[in-house]
Amino acid sequence: MKSNEHKLITLTTDFGIEDDYVGLMKGVIHSINPNARVIDLTHYIPPQDVEWTAHMLYYSFGYFPEGTIHVVVVDPGVGSSRPIKLVRLEGHYFLTPDNGVMTKLAAHYRPQEIRTITNREYFLADISNTFHGRDIFAPVAAHLSNGVSPKKLGEASREVKSLSLPEPQLKGSEISGHIIHVDRFGNLITNIEQQMVNQLSQSYSELSIHLSNSSLSGIKNSYTETGEGNLMAIFGSKGLLEISVNKGSAAKVLNVRKGEQIKVMAFET
Amino acid sequence: MKSNEHKLITLTTDFGIEDDYVGLMKGVIHSINPNARVIDLTHYIPPQDVEWTAHMLYYSFGYFPEGTIHVVVVDPGVGSSRPIKLVRLEGHYFLTPDNGVMTKLAAHYRPQEIRTITNREYFLADISNTFHGRDIFAPVAAHLSNGVSPKKLGEASREVKSLSLPEPQLKGSEISGHIIHVDRFGNLITNIEQQMVNQLSQSYSELSIHLSNSSLSGIKNSYTETGEGNLMAIFGSKGLLEISVNKGSAAKVLNVRKGEQIKVMAFET
Amino acid sequence: MKSNEHKLITLTTDFGIEDDYVGLMKGVIHSINPNARVIDLTHYIPPQDVEWTAHMLYYSFGYFPEGTIHVVVVDPGVGSSRPIKLVRLEGHYFLTPDNGVMTKLAAHYRPQEIRTITNREYFLADISNTFHGRDIFAPVAAHLSNGVSPKKLGEASREVKSLSLPEPQLKGSEISGHIIHVDRFGNLITNIEQQMVNQLSQSYSELSIHLSNSSLSGIKNSYTETGEGNLMAIFGSKGLLEISVNKGSAAKVLNVRKGEQIKVMAFET
Repeated sequence: MKSNEHKLITLTTDFGIEDDYVGLMKGVIHSINPNARVIDLTHYIPPQDVEWTAHMLYYSFGYFPEGTIHVVVVDPGVGSSRPIKLVRLEGHYFLTPDNGVMTKLAAHYRPQEIRTITNREYFLADISNTFHGRDIFAPVAAHLSNGVSPKKLGEASREVKSLSLPEPQLKGSEISGHIIHVDRFGNLITNIEQQMVNQLSQSYSELSIHLSNSSLSGIKNSYTETGEGNLMAIFGSKGLLEISVNKGSAAKVLNVRKGEQIKVMAFET
Repeated sequence: MKSNEHKLITLTTDFGIEDDYVGLMKGVIHSINPNARVIDLTHYIPPQDVEWTAHMLYYSFGYFPEGTIHVVVVDPGVGSSRPIKLVRLEGHYFLTPDNGVMTKLAAHYRPQEIRTITNREYFLADISNTFHGRDIFAPVAAHLSNGVSPKKLGEASREVKSLSLPEPQLKGSEISGHIIHVDRFGNLITNIEQQMVNQLSQSYSELSIHLSNSSLSGIKNSYTETGEGNLMAIFGSKGLLEISVNKGSAAKVLNVRKGEQIKVMAFET
Repeated sequence: MKSNEHKLITLTTDFGIEDDYVGLMKGVIHSINPNARVIDLTHYIPPQDVEWTAHMLYYSFGYFPEGTIHVVVVDPGVGSSRPIKLVRLEGHYFLTPDNGVMTKLAAHYRPQEIRTITNREYFLADISNTFHGRDIFAPVAAHLSNGVSPKKLGEASREVKSLSLPEPQLKGSEISGHIIHVDRFGNLITNIEQQMVNQLSQSYSELSIHLSNSSLSGIKNSYTETGEGNLMAIFGSKGLLEISVNKGSAAKVLNVRKGEQIKVMAFET
């Protein structure tokens, strides 16, 4: 059994699964590497939400084995001249449009290799202007999983595009951040990491959370610590502060959307 | 090729696939067992519907090969102290929160082994309070699929939690049951098994079905036996009495939901 | 490793993934062939849309490797006496209800083999009247992927059912076609192939597109060639003329549905 036999490929797109788009990418991958293992990370990135993709990849990739090839097709510029990049960092490969989806990863980890993907030998013969996921990303990922050297895919490059993502700010006894994603359950996921809140907690005994004219007292440890239908702040599974409703939707209760500001305030009692 | 190479793991959750939650579980599984085969049974259990999960598992597991590991994360108590159990019965493994999802299986088959899963050696190093699917269920299932003995996962246990699920009643010439699930097509799935109806049919020549102020005469053998848009009773693919509409939604036509009572009445003509 | 070890099976249905139906088909397949690779092409064919299925299969199958077994369960006649056929063409197998889903494939490629599937030895022991996907299609596909000869599955047959699908017409300087599918993004996919439009373009310098009281001038090469929210005509990833809105839904903007007529008119400036 060759060492690359079970190389994993993950797919992250905003295609949804209602059409055959994702299935076609898998067909192309298996045509080139019949042994590939393909895992859907998600196909419901909010349409063209490059910012959330950048966060999601950063918090997710570590749950996959080293050597995994992460294919990311959140690509508002498909058909334009935006380059496609292959980035290797922490032993993982990321094949993405160069539109900022690597912002958070590249800021926190030193890329070991960056290539601009140009070698049409590893693309499908016919390339549409609307579906590079099928015609470029899928075949390149499959060849890579077959052991093709990244060097053959295109020239080395110095950098990937970086967006200025709003980062949470800690000033005095206050953290200000914002909602970066609303998940299917209506949980409001913020960009405030537990570590930053812990810094505050070391100096102050009490915390309150404020968003959209609502205030919450303290941070719960589990959904079951509050009654059904009640709002709570909790550190979610990505280690980020989330606003949730036990057996309900915080997004509906607060009528809040992505982008909304949130504040954590610390004080002494 | 090792005997455990293709051990199947099925996933049943109420997570949906809009977010990365299911993908992360698969990442963890493949990090531990690169050869695992993972099948999504469904990720759209109605939120926290332990009762339907108990029924669904009972009617579904037999379509998978012996040795399959069924991971069930329908878990309103995540983060609380509810135990996690591994149950072996009929040669299948079930890894579930101990909240009643095993009720129907454990009532009909003698569990061959029950263990309370406590050995953190087989969990992820960091365990969140909100996503045990990723941090406990996925790694334990993967280790099990790698051949780790259930004995290493935790102490033997005598029982799993059992809910009192309402069972259909046959009294004289009448069966009373209720709707336990509405599927995507609007089919109303009842808890009345074909076998119980057959008992009635042996003694009576005619049947009528009653729910929500509507009456249906007889039970059809195929969707095509009635015209488009017409209500019918039929035995569905789980061997349960279902109320359906040919090319339509019985749930919409009758404005009926899960929990509604249904009666089958037998009589002579 | 046997040559059939990684034989691919694709699934195309209108089941959705909210219930356990698709998972059960995969359980049956893996019970019979633990080495099968199963790819979901789509489970969101619009309910019972045989016409779109016929088009989708035609434009999709070539992205899968030769030898792939395509299982198609879009089957309004389940439980009736409609036959099930296995068709081999271009080195691919198609296992489908004989209801017209093969129309476009069989019209363009010569079937190398057609069989009517009748041998219950390769079905599940119990066959429901409502779920042949699980009870017949899945096990037959799995046995086929295990190397069972098509000859064992049923008698040879001369033809598959053919529907009269409306084909686009080129008359003089005008093509008339219609919308055959609306995808998740609201792109309106027509049945007009690029090749037919190219014929017009050779003789005329300008094109305009007309549907639903709207007119569009020319055909764009990329979504980015027009501003956000603007309607455009473009050749989509299937090589078919599509009406799209950059970062929006053409279906919503035009309030247009499947079946609507569309015209391409050519002229000199």
